[in-house]
Amino acid sequence: MNIIENLWQTDHIIRGWLKEVREDILSELHDPLAVAEKTSRKDLVTNVDKANEKKIIKAIRSFDSQAKILGEEGQGDQVTSMQGHVWIIDPLDGTLNFVKQRDNFAVMIALYIDGKGILGYIMDVMRNRIYGGGPSLGVFTQDNELTKPTNLHLRDGLLGVSGPMLIHDKYHLQAIDEASSGVRIIGSAGIEFIQVLKGKQNGYISHLMPWDFAAGKILAETLNLSVTKVDGTPVDMLSSNDVLVSTKDTQKDILNMIR
Amino acid sequence: MNIIENLWQTDHIIRGWLKEVREDILSELHDPLAVAEKTSRKDLVTNVDKANEKKIIKAIRSFDSQAKILGEEGQGDQVTSMQGHVWIIDPLDGTLNFVKQRDNFAVMIALYIDGKGILGYIMDVMRNRIYGGGPSLGVFTQDNELTKPTNLHLRDGLLGVSGPMLIHDKYHLQAIDEASSGVRIIGSAGIEFIQVLKGKQNGYISHLMPWDFAAGKILAETLNLSVTKVDGTPVDMLSSNDVLVSTKDTQKDILNMIR
Repeated sequence: MNIIENLWQTDHIIRGWLKEVREDILSELHDPLAVAEKTSRKDLVTNVDKANEKKIIKAIRSFDSQAKILGEEGQGDQVTSMQGHVWIIDPLDGTLNFVKQRDNFAVMIALYIDGKGILGYIMDVMRNRIYGGGPSLGVFTQDNELTKPTNLHLRDGLLGVSGPMLIHDKYHLQAIDEASSGVRIIGSAGIEFIQVLKGKQNGYISHLMPWDFAAGKILAETLNLSVTKVDGTPVDMLSSNDVLVSTKDTQKDILNMIR
Repeated sequence: MNIIENLWQTDHIIRGWLKEVREDILSELHDPLAVAEKTSRKDLVTNVDKANEKKIIKAIRSFDSQAKILGEEGQGDQVTSMQGHVWIIDPLDGTLNFVKQRDNFAVMIALYIDGKGILGYIMDVMRNRIYGGGPSLGVFTQDNELTKPTNLHLRDGLLGVSGPMLIHDKYHLQAIDEASSGVRIIGSAGIEFIQVLKGKQNGYISHLMPWDFAAGKILAETLNLSVTKVDGTPVDMLSSNDVLVSTKDTQKDILNMIR
Protein backbone atom coordinates (compact mmCIF):
# COMPACT_ATOMS: atom_id res chain seq x y z
CA MET A 1 0.00 0.00 0.00
CA ASN A 2 1.24 3.49 -0.76
CA ILE A 3 0.99 5.25 2.58
CA ILE A 4 0.92 8.79 1.22
CA GLU A 5 -1.94 7.97 -1.14
CA ASN A 6 -3.89 6.18 1.59
CA LEU A 7 -3.44 8.35 4.64
CA TRP A 8 -6.95 7.90 6.00
CA GLN A 9 -6.62 4.15 5.79
CA THR A 10 -3.21 4.29 7.45
CA ASP A 11 -4.74 6.47 10.17
CA HIS A 12 -7.41 3.83 10.74
CA ILE A 13 -4.82 1.05 10.91
CA ILE A 14 -2.57 2.87 13.38
CA ARG A 15 -5.53 3.66 15.65
CA GLY A 16 -6.33 -0.05 15.55
CA TRP A 17 -2.82 -0.93 16.77
CA LEU A 18 -3.18 1.57 19.60
CA LYS A 19 -6.52 0.15 20.68
CA GLU A 20 -4.97 -3.31 20.89
CA VAL A 21 -2.05 -1.98 22.91
CA ARG A 22 -4.51 -0.29 25.25
CA GLU A 23 -6.35 -3.55 25.83
CA ASP A 24 -3.04 -5.22 26.66
CA ILE A 25 -2.15 -2.47 29.14
CA LEU A 26 -5.56 -2.57 30.84
CA SER A 27 -5.28 -6.35 31.24
CA GLU A 28 -1.93 -5.87 33.06
CA LEU A 29 -3.03 -2.91 35.15
CA HIS A 30 -3.73 -4.73 38.38
CA ASP A 31 -0.91 -7.25 38.10
CA PRO A 32 2.47 -6.71 39.74
CA LEU A 33 4.88 -5.01 37.34
CA ALA A 34 8.43 -6.05 36.58
CA VAL A 35 10.16 -2.69 37.06
CA ALA A 36 13.81 -2.05 36.23
CA GLU A 37 15.89 1.12 36.55
CA LYS A 38 17.60 2.41 33.41
CA THR A 39 19.82 5.46 34.00
CA SER A 40 18.51 6.23 37.52
CA ARG A 41 15.79 5.36 40.05
CA LYS A 42 13.58 7.93 38.30
CA ASP A 43 14.12 6.46 34.81
CA LEU A 44 12.17 3.21 34.79
CA VAL A 45 11.17 0.53 32.35
CA THR A 46 8.58 -2.20 32.89
CA ASN A 47 7.58 -5.42 31.21
CA VAL A 48 4.64 -3.46 29.77
CA ASP A 49 6.88 -0.91 28.00
CA LYS A 50 8.80 -3.74 26.37
CA ALA A 51 5.75 -5.81 25.39
CA ASN A 52 4.07 -2.75 23.86
CA GLU A 53 7.15 -1.89 21.83
CA LYS A 54 7.47 -5.44 20.56
CA LYS A 55 3.82 -5.47 19.48
CA ILE A 56 3.97 -2.09 17.75
CA ILE A 57 7.21 -2.92 15.93
CA LYS A 58 5.71 -6.19 14.69
CA ALA A 59 2.64 -4.33 13.41
CA ILE A 60 4.74 -1.70 11.64
CA ARG A 61 7.03 -4.28 10.03
CA SER A 62 4.13 -6.20 8.53
CA PHE A 63 2.46 -2.98 7.36
CA ASP A 64 5.43 -1.06 5.94
CA SER A 65 8.29 -3.01 4.42
CA GLN A 66 10.36 0.19 4.09
CA ALA A 67 10.10 1.03 7.80
CA LYS A 68 13.07 2.11 9.86
CA ILE A 69 11.92 2.09 13.49
CA LEU A 70 13.29 4.19 16.35
CA GLY A 71 11.83 3.02 19.66
CA GLU A 72 12.55 4.00 23.25
CA GLU A 73 13.34 0.50 24.44
CA GLY A 74 15.75 -0.24 21.60
CA GLN A 75 14.03 -3.20 19.96
CA GLY A 76 13.81 -1.31 16.67
CA ASP A 77 16.59 -0.22 14.35
CA GLN A 78 19.70 1.92 14.71
CA VAL A 79 18.33 4.96 12.91
CA THR A 80 21.00 7.41 11.79
CA SER A 81 19.12 9.46 9.22
CA MET A 82 15.59 10.70 8.62
CA GLN A 83 15.65 9.59 4.98
CA GLY A 84 12.90 7.19 3.93
CA HIS A 85 10.12 5.93 6.20
CA VAL A 86 11.09 6.55 9.80
CA TRP A 87 8.68 5.42 12.51
CA ILE A 88 9.38 6.82 15.98
CA ILE A 89 7.57 5.15 18.85
CA ASP A 90 7.24 5.55 22.59
CA PRO A 91 5.60 2.35 23.83
CA LEU A 92 4.90 3.83 27.27
CA ASP A 93 5.58 7.48 27.98
CA GLY A 94 5.47 8.52 31.63
CA THR A 95 6.62 5.18 33.00
CA LEU A 96 7.12 6.66 36.48
CA ASN A 97 3.46 7.73 36.49
CA PHE A 98 2.47 4.31 35.20
CA VAL A 99 4.37 2.63 38.04
CA LYS A 100 3.32 5.02 40.83
CA GLN A 101 -0.15 6.08 39.68
CA ARG A 102 -1.41 3.74 36.97
CA ASP A 103 -2.55 7.01 35.36
CA ASN A 104 -1.20 9.92 33.31
CA PHE A 105 0.81 7.93 30.77
CA ALA A 106 0.70 7.71 26.99
CA VAL A 107 1.61 5.61 23.98
CA MET A 108 2.95 7.48 20.94
CA ILE A 109 3.58 6.63 17.30
CA ALA A 110 4.93 8.95 14.61
CA LEU A 111 5.70 8.47 10.94
CA TYR A 112 8.18 10.73 9.14
CA ILE A 113 8.96 10.33 5.44
CA ASP A 114 12.19 11.90 4.21
CA GLY A 115 12.22 14.08 7.32
CA LYS A 116 8.68 15.38 6.94
CA GLY A 117 6.14 14.63 9.66
CA ILE A 118 3.27 12.69 8.08
CA LEU A 119 1.23 11.13 10.89
CA GLY A 120 1.41 11.39 14.68
CA TYR A 121 -0.60 9.69 17.45
CA ILE A 122 -0.71 10.22 21.22
CA MET A 123 -2.95 7.90 23.22
CA ASP A 124 -3.99 8.95 26.74
CA VAL A 125 -4.50 5.40 27.91
CA MET A 126 -6.58 5.88 31.06
CA ARG A 127 -8.88 8.54 29.56
CA ASN A 128 -9.22 6.38 26.44
CA ARG A 129 -8.45 9.13 23.97
CA ILE A 130 -6.28 8.97 20.87
CA TYR A 131 -5.15 12.33 19.48
CA GLY A 132 -3.89 11.74 15.99
CA GLY A 133 -3.55 12.86 12.41
CA GLY A 134 -1.15 15.11 10.58
CA PRO A 135 -0.76 18.07 8.23
CA SER A 136 -2.89 16.51 5.48
CA LEU A 137 -5.66 15.19 7.73
CA GLY A 138 -5.95 17.58 10.65
CA VAL A 139 -5.96 16.37 14.27
CA PHE A 140 -8.77 14.15 15.52
CA THR A 141 -9.71 12.37 18.65
CA GLN A 142 -12.38 9.65 18.61
CA ASP A 143 -15.25 12.05 18.47
CA ASN A 144 -14.13 15.35 17.06
CA GLU A 145 -11.56 17.44 15.23
CA LEU A 146 -9.33 19.67 17.30
CA THR A 147 -9.35 23.34 16.40
CA LYS A 148 -6.27 25.53 16.47
CA PRO A 149 -5.73 26.83 20.03
CA THR A 150 -6.00 30.58 20.56
CA ASN A 151 -2.59 32.24 20.14
CA LEU A 152 -2.27 33.31 23.78
CA HIS A 153 0.62 35.17 25.35
CA LEU A 154 2.67 33.59 28.14
CA ARG A 155 0.91 35.59 30.86
CA ASP A 156 -2.54 34.42 29.75
CA GLY A 157 -2.16 30.67 30.18
CA LEU A 158 -0.66 27.78 32.12
CA LEU A 159 2.81 26.44 31.32
CA GLY A 160 3.83 22.81 31.69
CA VAL A 161 7.44 22.15 32.63
CA SER A 162 9.88 19.45 33.60
CA GLY A 163 10.36 19.28 37.38
CA PRO A 164 14.17 18.98 37.25
CA MET A 165 14.50 21.88 34.77
CA LEU A 166 12.32 24.06 37.00
CA ILE A 167 14.25 23.15 40.16
CA HIS A 168 17.59 23.87 38.45
CA ASP A 169 16.19 27.10 36.95
CA LYS A 170 17.44 26.24 33.48
CA TYR A 171 16.70 29.06 30.98
CA HIS A 172 15.40 31.26 33.86
CA LEU A 173 12.46 28.88 33.95
CA GLN A 174 11.44 30.04 37.44
CA ALA A 175 10.97 33.60 36.21
CA ILE A 176 9.26 32.38 33.04
CA ASP A 177 6.83 30.35 35.12
CA GLU A 178 6.09 33.31 37.36
CA ALA A 179 5.33 35.36 34.26
CA SER A 180 2.78 32.78 33.13
CA SER A 181 -0.61 32.23 34.77
CA GLY A 182 0.79 29.23 36.57
CA VAL A 183 3.04 26.21 36.30
CA ARG A 184 1.92 22.61 35.98
CA ILE A 185 3.92 19.35 36.12
CA ILE A 186 2.26 16.18 34.87
CA GLY A 187 5.25 13.91 34.31
CA SER A 188 4.40 12.59 30.84
CA ALA A 189 5.47 14.42 27.68
CA GLY A 190 2.58 12.86 25.80
CA ILE A 191 -0.04 14.08 28.24
CA GLU A 192 1.62 17.52 28.36
CA PHE A 193 1.51 17.73 24.54
CA ILE A 194 -2.18 16.85 24.66
CA GLN A 195 -2.78 19.71 27.10
CA VAL A 196 -1.13 22.12 24.68
CA LEU A 197 -2.94 20.71 21.63
CA LYS A 198 -6.26 21.23 23.42
CA GLY A 199 -5.38 24.77 24.51
CA LYS A 200 -5.46 23.80 28.21
CA GLN A 201 -1.83 24.87 28.56
CA ASN A 202 -0.04 27.59 26.60
CA GLY A 203 3.10 25.54 26.34
CA TYR A 204 5.39 22.87 27.69
CA ILE A 205 9.16 22.86 28.22
CA SER A 206 11.24 19.75 28.88
CA HIS A 207 14.39 17.85 28.00
CA LEU A 208 13.07 15.24 25.58
CA MET A 209 14.20 12.31 23.49
CA PRO A 210 12.92 11.91 19.90
CA TRP A 211 10.18 9.43 20.94
CA ASP A 212 8.94 11.92 23.54
CA PHE A 213 8.17 14.64 21.00
CA ALA A 214 8.06 13.06 17.49
CA ALA A 215 4.28 12.52 17.43
CA GLY A 216 3.46 15.67 19.37
CA LYS A 217 5.52 17.81 17.01
CA ILE A 218 3.49 16.70 13.99
CA LEU A 219 0.18 17.32 15.75
CA ALA A 220 1.24 20.62 17.29
CA GLU A 221 2.52 22.04 14.01
CA THR A 222 -0.69 20.95 12.29
CA LEU A 223 -2.53 23.12 14.83
CA ASN A 224 -0.28 26.14 14.15
CA LEU A 225 1.70 25.71 17.37
CA SER A 226 5.44 26.16 17.50
CA VAL A 227 7.83 23.28 18.30
CA THR A 228 11.51 24.23 18.60
CA LYS A 229 14.41 24.00 20.98
CA VAL A 230 13.97 26.37 23.92
CA ASP A 231 16.39 28.81 22.25
CA GLY A 232 14.14 28.94 19.17
CA THR A 233 16.32 26.83 16.86
CA PRO A 234 15.02 23.70 15.08
CA VAL A 235 14.92 20.42 17.00
CA ASP A 236 17.12 17.53 15.97
CA MET A 237 14.88 14.52 15.33
CA LEU A 238 17.62 12.01 16.14
CA SER A 239 18.91 13.27 19.49
CA SER A 240 17.74 14.74 22.77
CA ASN A 241 16.67 18.39 22.84
CA ASP A 242 15.39 20.92 25.34
CA VAL A 243 12.03 21.31 23.61
CA LEU A 244 9.48 24.11 23.76
CA VAL A 245 6.01 23.50 22.35
CA SER A 246 3.76 26.51 22.66
CA THR A 247 1.55 29.03 20.99
CA LYS A 248 3.52 31.36 18.75
CA ASP A 249 3.06 34.40 20.99
CA THR A 250 4.09 32.43 24.06
CA GLN A 251 7.21 31.30 22.22
CA LYS A 252 8.08 34.93 21.44
CA ASP A 253 7.53 35.91 25.08
CA ILE A 254 9.77 33.09 26.30
CA LEU A 255 12.52 33.84 23.77
CA ASN A 256 12.48 37.47 24.91
CA MET A 257 13.00 36.38 28.51
CA ILE A 258 15.79 33.92 27.66
CA ARG A 259 17.83 36.24 25.49
CA MET B 1 -32.34 15.45 62.52
CA ASN B 2 -29.44 14.56 64.79
CA ILE B 3 -26.50 14.51 62.42
CA ILE B 4 -24.22 12.36 64.56
CA GLU B 5 -26.89 9.68 64.94
CA ASN B 6 -27.68 9.74 61.22
CA LEU B 7 -24.29 9.98 59.55
CA TRP B 8 -25.10 7.70 56.63
CA GLN B 9 -28.22 9.69 55.85
CA THR B 10 -26.27 12.94 56.11
CA ASP B 11 -23.65 11.46 53.78
CA HIS B 12 -26.38 10.66 51.27
CA ILE B 13 -27.81 14.17 51.51
CA ILE B 14 -24.45 15.92 51.06
CA ARG B 15 -23.63 13.77 48.03
CA GLY B 16 -27.00 14.84 46.63
CA TRP B 17 -26.07 18.51 46.98
CA LEU B 18 -22.78 17.87 45.22
CA LYS B 19 -24.47 16.09 42.33
CA GLU B 20 -26.76 19.09 41.86
CA VAL B 21 -23.82 21.49 41.93
CA ARG B 22 -22.07 19.34 39.35
CA GLU B 23 -25.07 19.55 37.03
CA ASP B 24 -25.04 23.32 37.40
CA ILE B 25 -21.33 23.51 36.58
CA LEU B 26 -21.65 21.25 33.53
CA SER B 27 -24.49 23.38 32.21
CA GLU B 28 -22.21 26.46 32.43
CA LEU B 29 -19.12 24.78 31.06
CA HIS B 30 -19.30 26.03 27.50
CA ASP B 31 -20.65 29.49 28.31
CA PRO B 32 -18.40 32.52 28.69
CA LEU B 33 -17.40 32.97 32.33
CA ALA B 34 -17.54 36.19 34.32
CA VAL B 35 -14.01 36.17 35.74
CA ALA B 36 -12.75 38.64 38.36
CA GLU B 37 -9.35 38.95 40.01
CA LYS B 38 -9.24 38.81 43.81
CA THR B 39 -5.76 39.38 45.28
CA SER B 40 -3.86 38.97 41.96
CA ARG B 41 -4.21 37.90 38.32
CA LYS B 42 -3.58 34.31 39.50
CA ASP B 43 -6.29 34.42 42.21
CA LEU B 44 -9.58 34.34 40.35
CA VAL B 45 -13.26 34.06 41.10
CA THR B 46 -16.05 33.39 38.61
CA ASN B 47 -19.82 33.58 38.57
CA VAL B 48 -19.77 29.79 38.96
CA ASP B 49 -17.81 29.89 42.25
CA LYS B 50 -20.33 32.34 43.66
CA ALA B 51 -23.44 30.50 42.43
CA ASN B 52 -22.14 27.20 43.81
CA GLU B 53 -21.46 28.75 47.19
CA LYS B 54 -24.89 30.31 47.35
CA LYS B 55 -26.54 26.99 46.52
CA ILE B 56 -24.51 24.97 49.03
CA ILE B 57 -25.09 27.52 51.81
CA LYS B 58 -28.81 27.46 51.17
CA ALA B 59 -28.83 23.64 51.33
CA ILE B 60 -26.85 23.60 54.58
CA ARG B 61 -29.04 26.25 56.22
CA SER B 62 -32.22 24.31 55.53
CA PHE B 63 -30.61 21.05 56.69
CA ASP B 64 -28.78 22.17 59.84
CA SER B 65 -30.26 25.02 61.86
CA GLN B 66 -27.14 25.13 64.06
CA ALA B 67 -24.76 25.61 61.11
CA LYS B 68 -21.99 28.16 61.11
CA ILE B 69 -20.64 28.30 57.56
CA LEU B 70 -17.13 29.29 56.45
CA GLY B 71 -16.98 29.64 52.67
CA GLU B 72 -14.26 30.84 50.33
CA GLU B 73 -16.36 33.51 48.66
CA GLY B 74 -17.58 35.03 51.94
CA GLN B 75 -21.33 34.50 51.57
CA GLY B 76 -21.38 32.44 54.79
CA ASP B 77 -20.72 33.54 58.37
CA GLN B 78 -17.84 35.20 60.16
CA VAL B 79 -16.59 32.07 61.91
CA THR B 80 -14.26 32.80 64.84
CA SER B 81 -14.35 29.48 66.70
CA MET B 82 -14.68 25.79 65.90
CA GLN B 83 -17.31 25.28 68.62
CA GLY B 84 -20.64 23.85 67.47
CA HIS B 85 -21.46 22.82 63.92
CA VAL B 86 -18.93 24.40 61.56
CA TRP B 87 -19.33 23.75 57.84
CA ILE B 88 -16.31 24.70 55.71
CA ILE B 89 -16.90 24.85 51.97
CA ASP B 90 -14.91 25.51 48.83
CA PRO B 91 -17.47 26.04 46.08
CA LEU B 92 -14.83 25.78 43.34
CA ASP B 93 -11.27 24.83 44.16
CA GLY B 94 -8.73 25.34 41.39
CA THR B 95 -10.49 28.29 39.79
CA LEU B 96 -7.47 29.03 37.58
CA ASN B 97 -7.69 25.49 36.17
CA PHE B 98 -11.44 25.92 35.75
CA VAL B 99 -10.91 29.14 33.78
CA LYS B 100 -7.94 27.96 31.69
CA GLN B 101 -8.65 24.24 31.32
CA ARG B 102 -12.25 23.50 32.30
CA ASP B 103 -10.66 20.53 34.07
CA ASN B 104 -8.81 19.65 37.27
CA PHE B 105 -11.03 21.51 39.74
CA ALA B 106 -13.03 20.38 42.75
CA VAL B 107 -15.92 21.24 45.05
CA MET B 108 -15.39 20.54 48.76
CA ILE B 109 -17.63 20.38 51.83
CA ALA B 110 -16.55 19.60 55.39
CA LEU B 111 -18.45 19.36 58.67
CA TYR B 112 -16.67 19.82 61.98
CA ILE B 113 -18.52 19.55 65.31
CA ASP B 114 -16.81 21.10 68.33
CA GLY B 115 -13.53 21.03 66.42
CA LYS B 116 -13.71 17.36 65.45
CA GLY B 117 -13.81 16.42 61.77
CA ILE B 118 -17.05 14.50 61.15
CA LEU B 119 -17.64 14.39 57.39
CA GLY B 120 -15.58 15.54 54.40
CA TYR B 121 -16.28 15.52 50.64
CA ILE B 122 -14.11 16.30 47.62
CA MET B 123 -15.77 16.14 44.22
CA ASP B 124 -13.55 15.83 41.12
CA VAL B 125 -16.10 17.45 38.84
CA MET B 126 -14.85 16.44 35.40
CA ARG B 127 -14.05 12.83 36.35
CA ASN B 128 -17.42 12.63 38.13
CA ARG B 129 -16.06 11.22 41.36
CA ILE B 130 -17.02 12.19 44.92
CA TYR B 131 -14.53 11.10 47.60
CA GLY B 132 -16.31 11.38 50.94
CA GLY B 133 -16.97 10.08 54.40
CA GLY B 134 -15.21 10.43 57.72
CA PRO B 135 -13.76 8.65 60.73
CA SER B 136 -17.00 6.81 61.55
CA LEU B 137 -17.87 5.81 57.98
CA GLY B 138 -14.61 5.30 56.13
CA VAL B 139 -13.90 6.95 52.77
CA PHE B 140 -16.00 6.05 49.76
CA THR B 141 -16.28 7.06 46.16
CA GLN B 142 -19.36 6.12 44.13
CA ASP B 143 -18.31 2.57 43.60
CA ASN B 144 -15.91 1.50 46.30
CA GLU B 145 -14.27 2.09 49.65
CA LEU B 146 -10.77 3.51 49.66
CA THR B 147 -8.17 1.47 51.50
CA LYS B 148 -5.37 3.01 53.53
CA PRO B 149 -2.45 3.89 51.23
CA THR B 150 0.82 2.05 51.78
CA ASN B 151 3.03 3.97 54.22
CA LEU B 152 5.73 4.80 51.66
CA HIS B 153 8.89 6.79 52.28
CA LEU B 154 9.55 10.05 50.45
CA ARG B 155 11.94 8.46 47.96
CA ASP B 156 9.40 5.84 46.92
CA GLY B 157 6.61 8.06 45.63
CA LEU B 158 5.59 11.26 43.86
CA LEU B 159 5.16 14.53 45.74
CA GLY B 160 2.63 17.20 44.84
CA VAL B 161 3.63 20.78 45.55
CA SER B 162 2.60 24.37 45.09
CA GLY B 163 4.39 25.99 42.14
CA PRO B 164 5.24 29.24 43.95
CA MET B 165 6.58 27.40 47.02
CA LEU B 166 8.77 25.23 44.80
CA ILE B 167 10.10 28.19 42.82
CA HIS B 168 10.90 30.11 46.03
CA ASP B 169 12.44 26.96 47.57
CA LYS B 170 10.47 27.37 50.79
CA TYR B 171 11.40 24.66 53.36
CA HIS B 172 14.17 23.41 51.02
CA LEU B 173 11.36 22.13 48.83
CA GLN B 174 13.66 21.80 45.81
CA ALA B 175 15.89 19.33 47.68
CA ILE B 176 12.85 17.55 49.12
CA ASP B 177 11.43 17.13 45.65
CA GLU B 178 14.70 15.78 44.32
CA ALA B 179 14.72 13.24 47.15
CA SER B 180 11.25 12.02 46.12
CA SER B 181 10.55 9.97 43.01
CA GLY B 182 9.34 13.10 41.26
CA VAL B 183 7.39 16.32 41.66
CA ARG B 184 3.91 17.01 40.32
CA ILE B 185 1.90 20.25 40.17
CA ILE B 186 -1.83 20.01 39.47
CA GLY B 187 -3.06 23.39 40.68
CA SER B 188 -6.07 22.28 42.76
CA ALA B 189 -5.70 21.36 46.43
CA GLY B 190 -8.78 19.14 46.17
CA ILE B 191 -7.40 17.12 43.27
CA GLU B 192 -3.99 16.90 44.98
CA PHE B 193 -5.64 15.57 48.16
CA ILE B 194 -7.45 12.96 46.05
CA GLN B 195 -4.11 11.83 44.60
CA VAL B 196 -2.74 11.33 48.12
CA LEU B 197 -5.92 9.59 49.36
CA LYS B 198 -5.65 7.13 46.47
CA GLY B 199 -1.93 6.50 47.03
CA LYS B 200 -1.02 8.00 43.65
CA GLN B 201 1.15 10.60 45.38
CA ASN B 202 3.01 10.21 48.66
CA GLY B 203 2.17 13.69 49.75
CA TYR B 204 1.28 17.28 48.92
CA ILE B 205 2.67 20.56 50.24
CA SER B 206 1.04 23.95 49.73
CA HIS B 207 0.02 27.20 51.40
CA LEU B 208 -3.69 26.63 51.98
CA MET B 209 -6.75 28.34 53.39
CA PRO B 210 -9.17 26.39 55.64
CA TRP B 211 -11.57 25.62 52.77
CA ASP B 212 -8.66 24.18 50.75
CA PHE B 213 -7.84 21.49 53.32
CA ALA B 214 -10.84 21.09 55.69
CA ALA B 215 -12.47 18.21 53.81
CA GLY B 216 -9.21 16.61 52.75
CA LYS B 217 -7.90 16.60 56.33
CA ILE B 218 -10.87 14.54 57.54
CA LEU B 219 -10.55 12.03 54.69
CA ALA B 220 -6.76 11.80 54.91
CA GLU B 221 -6.74 11.20 58.67
CA THR B 222 -9.43 8.56 58.25
CA LEU B 223 -6.99 6.75 55.93
CA ASN B 224 -4.14 6.99 58.45
CA LEU B 225 -2.38 9.79 56.58
CA SER B 226 -0.79 12.72 58.38
CA VAL B 227 -2.08 16.31 57.97
CA THR B 228 -0.02 18.99 59.74
CA LYS B 229 1.80 22.19 59.04
CA VAL B 230 5.01 21.60 57.11
CA ASP B 231 6.97 21.93 60.38
CA GLY B 232 4.95 19.09 61.91
CA THR B 233 2.78 21.21 64.22
CA PRO B 234 -1.04 21.09 64.14
CA VAL B 235 -2.88 23.13 61.52
CA ASP B 236 -5.09 26.03 62.56
CA MET B 237 -8.57 25.41 61.15
CA LEU B 238 -9.43 29.11 61.00
CA SER B 239 -6.42 30.59 59.21
CA SER B 240 -4.01 29.91 56.37
CA ASN B 241 -1.28 27.30 56.90
CA ASP B 242 1.61 25.78 54.99
CA VAL B 243 0.08 22.30 54.96
CA LEU B 244 1.70 18.90 54.46
CA VAL B 245 -0.54 15.90 53.83
CA SER B 246 1.42 12.68 53.40
CA THR B 247 2.05 9.16 54.51
CA LYS B 248 3.53 9.01 58.00
CA ASP B 249 6.95 7.87 56.83
CA THR B 250 7.08 10.58 54.17
CA GLN B 251 6.23 13.14 56.83
CA LYS B 252 9.14 11.92 58.97
CA ASP B 253 11.50 12.07 55.99
CA ILE B 254 10.42 15.63 55.17
CA LEU B 255 10.69 16.80 58.79
CA ASN B 256 14.22 15.39 58.92
CA MET B 257 15.17 17.41 55.84
CA ILE B 258 13.58 20.62 57.12
CA ARG B 259 15.15 20.56 60.59
